[in-house]
Amino acid sequence: MTSVQPVLAMVDPGAERVSVADASAAHLRVDDLSAQRGDGIFETMLVVEGLRQQEAWHFDRFVKSARALDLPEPGWQLWKSALDTVIEDFRNANPAARVFGVRYVLSRGIDGADRPHGWVSTVPIPDSYAAQADAGLAVTGLDAGFDAYLGAAAPWLLQGAKTLSYAGRMAATRYAKKGGFDEALFFSHDGLALEFPTANLIVARDRRLMTPAPEAGLLHGTTQRAIFLRARAIGWACDYVDLRRGDIEAADGAWIVSSIRTAMPVIRLDDSELAFDAELNREVRSLALEH
Amino acid sequence: MTSVQPVLAMVDPGAERVSVADASAAHLRVDDLSAQRGDGIFETMLVVEGLRQQEAWHFDRFVKSARALDLPEPGWQLWKSALDTVIEDFRNANPAARVFGVRYVLSRGIDGADRPHGWVSTVPIPDSYAAQADAGLAVTGLDAGFDAYLGAAAPWLLQGAKTLSYAGRMAATRYAKKGGFDEALFFSHDGLALEFPTANLIVARDRRLMTPAPEAGLLHGTTQRAIFLRARAIGWACDYVDLRRGDIEAADGAWIVSSIRTAMPVIRLDDSELAFDAELNREVRSLALEH
Repeated sequence: MTSVQPVLAMVDPGAERVSVADASAAHLRVDDLSAQRGDGIFETMLVVEGLRQQEAWHFDRFVKSARALDLPEPGWQLWKSALDTVIEDFRNANPAARVFGVRYVLSRGIDGADRPHGWVSTVPIPDSYAAQADAGLAVTGLDAGFDAYLGAAAPWLLQGAKTLSYAGRMAATRYAKKGGFDEALFFSHDGLALEFPTANLIVARDRRLMTPAPEAGLLHGTTQRAIFLRARAIGWACDYVDLRRGDIEAADGAWIVSSIRTAMPVIRLDDSELAFDAELNREVRSLALEH
Repeated sequence: MTSVQPVLAMVDPGAERVSVADASAAHLRVDDLSAQRGDGIFETMLVVEGLRQQEAWHFDRFVKSARALDLPEPGWQLWKSALDTVIEDFRNANPAARVFGVRYVLSRGIDGADRPHGWVSTVPIPDSYAAQADAGLAVTGLDAGFDAYLGAAAPWLLQGAKTLSYAGRMAATRYAKKGGFDEALFFSHDGLALEFPTANLIVARDRRLMTPAPEAGLLHGTTQRAIFLRARAIGWACDYVDLRRGDIEAADGAWIVSSIRTAMPVIRLDDSELAFDAELNREVRSLALEH
């Protein structure tokens, strides 16, 4: 990763206070429920040349995640102020850093204290991402374990909430890499494509973009929404649909999309080479960022 | 919770070092993967009058969890030394604390540093547990989302590994409490009883104890194993079996068992009152602890 000076601000919603803090110092007790139970929520937003990508949709989802976990509703003023501080301090400290991520987190706080707290920190873009964007990714389909469209009847599964409990998602990526792939793609137990561990799937066919419906059991992606918004504005059809393995194999192109990755082509799904069209890829990638 | 002086030791497996630390101070950076991704493993062991309950089985499971998450295998000497330190310091500082828990954790460490680290801390017994043990618990059955016996074919699901990613388990307990229950009981999507969010299920019928098989998709409980070991020694049949809702409703008794809870009777499953026999309950509870 590029050597940059990270910036951190701690957020105390109870006191409505934001405090810049030393990112290289410890700020959490071991009984903070983020560390003890993965019990909290987060968002990761991309900042490009000072422009915050999909800021409102990120915060909307943060609020939705808080509701799903019975955390107090985050206030926009407080978190906006923390984001402003971190982004401004980071850009001042690292004027050469054109693109970076900002992660914001709300933890349930210290076990038993009933006092959620949070933080905002800068996130470097992994060096490997530039090469992946050029070369495209080989992915392996993995069973997510659950059937599609379970979430509405089972709110305790927290589907659609972006929690800190990502051990299983991280394990899926490691499993994929051990098998020689770049990333995992989750399918529901009954065979519908869902999402990547930290990204959404978009496929194109006949100038129509398609992505799995969030209700199938996945996070509603901010980058996916941005691509759909801009694609519709230039006349493309964009739909939330059920996609099976064969639909991905038959597509004109497939992309892994997330805030930090933006959009990168997926060129292989297990043993199947996927279609890749350089011009179509350029178009989809250009839809991912606000310019 | 009883007012006691908690004790904490940080564990550095790379340096094979244990350092006693201030439990009221911060020791984790916000980019520690325990807090950022719930990416780590843990055990919680009960200590009664100085006797460590199921110490070896806890550590066995800790090692198994480390393997499932591709964490370096924990060394018994190092962790034993940390447990010794914490338990001795706690008993010296709190001579009146007859029963307490000790949690030990291995985190993947700071994001990008590739240097896992851990800690051992004391855990108070929740005040509510004494009343629950006497009154019994009312529980509600919740869909875990996945079918039973998926885990062997899908190691990335981390079934059987005790990870820090417990947001979903915590949400299930909150959901149960909102509905007026004491706890949730997970059933597989295809209807087999699995486990409670942080405890196992044991039922009795005709002096036979039964519990769901770990391979069905649940943690193999140390307290459940201890109860089975001691029950077999006094001639009871003990088996890992598939239990459906009707099997629990037809049982002579049902218990929620875990290190911190030991064994507590479950007296209601949703709308069904479960059988409760005071003598049988006394017997099962006495099997849960080493005396």
